[in-house]
Amino acid sequence: MSPKITGELLRLLRNAMRNCKYVSEPIQAYIIPSGDAHQSEYIAPCDCRREFISGFNGSAGTAIVTEQHAAMWTDGRYFLQASQQMDNNWTLMKMGLKETPSQEDWLISVLPENSKVGVDPWIIAADQWKHMSKALSSAGHSLVAVQDNLIDVVWTDRPERASSQLRILGLEHAGVSWQDKVTALRGKMAERKINWFVATALDEIAWLFNLRGADIEYNPVFFAYTILGMNSIRLFVDLKRLSDPALRDHLQLDSPSKADMSIQTFPYESVYTELQAICAALGPKDKVWICDKASCCLTQVIAKPHRTPIPYTPLCLAKAVKNPTEIQGMKLAHIKDAVALCELFAWLEKEIPKGTVTEISAADKAEELRSQQKDFVGLSFPTISGVGPNAAIIHYGPLPETNRTLTVNEVYLIDSGAQYIDGTTDVTRTMHFGTPSAYEKECFTYVLKGHIAVSAAIFPNGTKGHLLDSFARAALWESGLDYLHGTGHGVGCFLNVHEGPCGISYKTFADEPLEAGMIVSDEPGYYEEGSFGIRVENVVLVVPAKPKYNYRNRGSLTFEPLTLVPIQVKMMSTELLTQRERDWVNEYHRKCREVVGAELERQGRKQALEWLIRETQPIV
Amino acid sequence: MSPKITGELLRLLRNAMRNCKYVSEPIQAYIIPSGDAHQSEYIAPCDCRREFISGFNGSAGTAIVTEQHAAMWTDGRYFLQASQQMDNNWTLMKMGLKETPSQEDWLISVLPENSKVGVDPWIIAADQWKHMSKALSSAGHSLVAVQDNLIDVVWTDRPERASSQLRILGLEHAGVSWQDKVTALRGKMAERKINWFVATALDEIAWLFNLRGADIEYNPVFFAYTILGMNSIRLFVDLKRLSDPALRDHLQLDSPSKADMSIQTFPYESVYTELQAICAALGPKDKVWICDKASCCLTQVIAKPHRTPIPYTPLCLAKAVKNPTEIQGMKLAHIKDAVALCELFAWLEKEIPKGTVTEISAADKAEELRSQQKDFVGLSFPTISGVGPNAAIIHYGPLPETNRTLTVNEVYLIDSGAQYIDGTTDVTRTMHFGTPSAYEKECFTYVLKGHIAVSAAIFPNGTKGHLLDSFARAALWESGLDYLHGTGHGVGCFLNVHEGPCGISYKTFADEPLEAGMIVSDEPGYYEEGSFGIRVENVVLVVPAKPKYNYRNRGSLTFEPLTLVPIQVKMMSTELLTQRERDWVNEYHRKCREVVGAELERQGRKQALEWLIRETQPIV
Repeated sequence: MSPKITGELLRLLRNAMRNCKYVSEPIQAYIIPSGDAHQSEYIAPCDCRREFISGFNGSAGTAIVTEQHAAMWTDGRYFLQASQQMDNNWTLMKMGLKETPSQEDWLISVLPENSKVGVDPWIIAADQWKHMSKALSSAGHSLVAVQDNLIDVVWTDRPERASSQLRILGLEHAGVSWQDKVTALRGKMAERKINWFVATALDEIAWLFNLRGADIEYNPVFFAYTILGMNSIRLFVDLKRLSDPALRDHLQLDSPSKADMSIQTFPYESVYTELQAICAALGPKDKVWICDKASCCLTQVIAKPHRTPIPYTPLCLAKAVKNPTEIQGMKLAHIKDAVALCELFAWLEKEIPKGTVTEISAADKAEELRSQQKDFVGLSFPTISGVGPNAAIIHYGPLPETNRTLTVNEVYLIDSGAQYIDGTTDVTRTMHFGTPSAYEKECFTYVLKGHIAVSAAIFPNGTKGHLLDSFARAALWESGLDYLHGTGHGVGCFLNVHEGPCGISYKTFADEPLEAGMIVSDEPGYYEEGSFGIRVENVVLVVPAKPKYNYRNRGSLTFEPLTLVPIQVKMMSTELLTQRERDWVNEYHRKCREVVGAELERQGRKQALEWLIRETQPIV
Repeated sequence: MSPKITGELLRLLRNAMRNCKYVSEPIQAYIIPSGDAHQSEYIAPCDCRREFISGFNGSAGTAIVTEQHAAMWTDGRYFLQASQQMDNNWTLMKMGLKETPSQEDWLISVLPENSKVGVDPWIIAADQWKHMSKALSSAGHSLVAVQDNLIDVVWTDRPERASSQLRILGLEHAGVSWQDKVTALRGKMAERKINWFVATALDEIAWLFNLRGADIEYNPVFFAYTILGMNSIRLFVDLKRLSDPALRDHLQLDSPSKADMSIQTFPYESVYTELQAICAALGPKDKVWICDKASCCLTQVIAKPHRTPIPYTPLCLAKAVKNPTEIQGMKLAHIKDAVALCELFAWLEKEIPKGTVTEISAADKAEELRSQQKDFVGLSFPTISGVGPNAAIIHYGPLPETNRTLTVNEVYLIDSGAQYIDGTTDVTRTMHFGTPSAYEKECFTYVLKGHIAVSAAIFPNGTKGHLLDSFARAALWESGLDYLHGTGHGVGCFLNVHEGPCGISYKTFADEPLEAGMIVSDEPGYYEEGSFGIRVENVVLVVPAKPKYNYRNRGSLTFEPLTLVPIQVKMMSTELLTQRERDWVNEYHRKCREVVGAELERQGRKQALEWLIRETQPIV
């Protein structure tokens, strides 16, 4: 992988930073967050500004360009990748290491006195703006909103914003009508005496209206805003998308059943002026809910006395607890996904010895096999398919120039998932198609012990996911090992593969408590730079547990794996497993065989079925 | 225990809330935090205002009195105790339960429009003020500083503020001179370009100057403030205390060795005006460090552009990492403490069957035995000595009216500790002097498993203590049990038995990472209301660990128990312990026998030695 040449681009950007066409006074630094106006994690090509300017295309990172410097902050998943994709103009700031300065500390250390730091107010979240603005002011600098995005100024061939066709999600998949969701949301608003709610997160809007789009690759969402009042619903979206009669019918655009369920539609771009108009007409005690991670620009439209910022919106919370229809859909999606993966692994086993399978072709094969499954829509994220040292790059995506051939001598890691109309999947398996080394097996076994410790954990109702993070690390820690990423994220149902407000990570304290019906991933790993990478990931459903006692009637929870793909026994040092861990593996494999076996049988996939049966033999 | 009758007091307080002698306009609510002007956890009798008005004397709690209501917020340790100590005028707000409103939410729900809520600005911490003020403003109310403390107004027989004799801590105990501590602190200030540091926490000031006092029971501190500049040291203290020639010599008050080590002394009360004078003379870029938990009153003296609030001061951080002299002192203190406890338990075993030992007499005996040890100064907190249902009251202190007799039929819990000149101790043991029930043993064993899981944990350098909290709970959770308090707190060295900035708790995310040399407690428990209580507590030292691997050269840490008192084998269901847990118990008991046995031998305490040897037989 050769880095992007950025010298000329940075020169142009620095010119723009001084150009009075864009800034009233020159700015000494410009912040380029990775995100769009909806603070999406995955973004459309037209929004990949941080990648455009730096070459680094990982999912998380913030660039800051000053007159002298260009620096990129990213986390442990991307240290290697970022250092390979960026040229010498860039300094990599490794977040999470003690010696790495925060963005604000770094800015304060390099800026001349009384500097102005610019940022696009649509791209920066309100809470980040506040934090950064405060830190800069305290050092005599100021954060300024630059209305024209300066990357767009130098990005001459920037792609158009997508406007894909909208897909209606029927009740058989959504479980609850959008009208009922609106009613529930208004109930939450009434409870908290809130008059208006501004929805800016694309997955929340898609979930609310039981609609899906394809504006952003991997995430079935569409560009839109919604402003919900107690008697009104405003939807901001490219109006061309609303011509389909079925869609108009679904949204009751032409004949609303009830006045308060009547959706007024507006062009996507008019959200700012419309919100201004609403805010101008607010009563003195009226309150507006907006996520504190919404854009600074929209947030500041709401005058402070009316603004009630919330870390997680009621839509985010409601969406996280899957309804029975969604749970059933997620289960079906995972069975289909397991069928594709069993087939893949059986195929790999046969093909790898021929020396013809590469990281890319294996990923392609996985996609091909998934696409044969019913209601397949697309992948849920770019497949991570890495062999040997490439697997140590935590979010590695194979490129032609990095593409390695799978052999019987190296560990292979594949982290992949798909969108089906009934649900979203995300699974990682680490396999060896020859004989793994004792060390590889040892590390794999520690990771597996961590995976099991989380998956089998029983914990009280009300427990936040971050309290479970250390369970995933204990076995690694005991041997002096660790991994520099969280253990799990929320997973949407035919929605974003990463969603809040729950997760399992040492990095946050603000996650919402786990509840029955929530779905998260459980994915500890171990990565040895330049050598190999290991991760074992299942998507798991939070379910009630019934332990022996019930302290204070709080009730207990545990996890049920939705992912049903065998975990390679060959990679385990079974003597390092406790009897309970061995029992867990055997019970898990029994269920894989039973559930996925039946589906393989039904689909007549004999080779995969044989593979499944062999790979799910009990261990002793 | 009968509750305090508070009707008349509340009537007087409500009068004061309307009296223009104290408030320019009537206030509709008055907040009574539990604390003093230094935000101490343990407070002097003259500062026990929340106890005076409510009767509730636990270590944590905040009272709010409105025209109609009186409510008390406290945490799970005190639910029982508070409900017993308060009369019907009070509503108990059980913090940590989902249905319990926060103080601000409750105020907003009960106050009439545009209410004023008063508080003593010396008692409320700056961060609490900010939080409360913001929440109230957003609902149309306001938080106002009431200069006269309204509890003092109605507290006619309020005690005088103590001014005990100061004790010099020689280098043989302190390890580092106060001058070297000042130099190190100034180094930290220079590093961060800070010009002034305002120290308000009593233990930080005591630690800095290698002085101890006795102004607050159990905590060897004295009322003082310090303002440190790069060339000046101001000490605010009752000047009468500085007449002792040895003390004047220790502080070099009459002949400072260097100008920048010259201490200027001021009356305790003049800190406000002196800080005002300093702040008036600040240069435009001058910065002042003050803890964000310091009083709102002192904090607001520093104009915002100059104020740099910090969650933990450099003194707090430096004090937490014990130097080799302090570690050695803590080890010695714990050996002496173990001698006293072995003697106590041997005595209890003989005396309990006679029916003559009560919770109070057992606690008194423990104190008597500790006081026989060299350099004993006093207890480090009120002894918790509870049998049967009383032990389920987490911070129970026996009173004549609650005092129960120890028998061979009930579990006995004693949580106690002492101040010695060389160190501070804090230990809990739960014992049965007859035959415990299977259920009591089962619960005890889960608690012990949690204790061992923390004590034996290996974790990377840089890990925050809160990440270890779940280790202590896993075995309890698995059976549906839990405890509603944190797992550990920092422990001072001949200082406060509770200190920051580290700890082991699910409740905080802002603790500082654990470092070798830090000392914390490890104290999971289980409490069955109305029946019994269990806790197993050791004080443990953070020490480097050497596991097999060393990922990213981060290094690993683990704990070494400083407490060396046998854990009663009779209470264990050894069949529930893993082999590793049994090995841990045996190794711990071997060390108790070796180290404490030698000291018992030296002190000629034969009976206790026999008890120790019997209680430390290996388990299989």
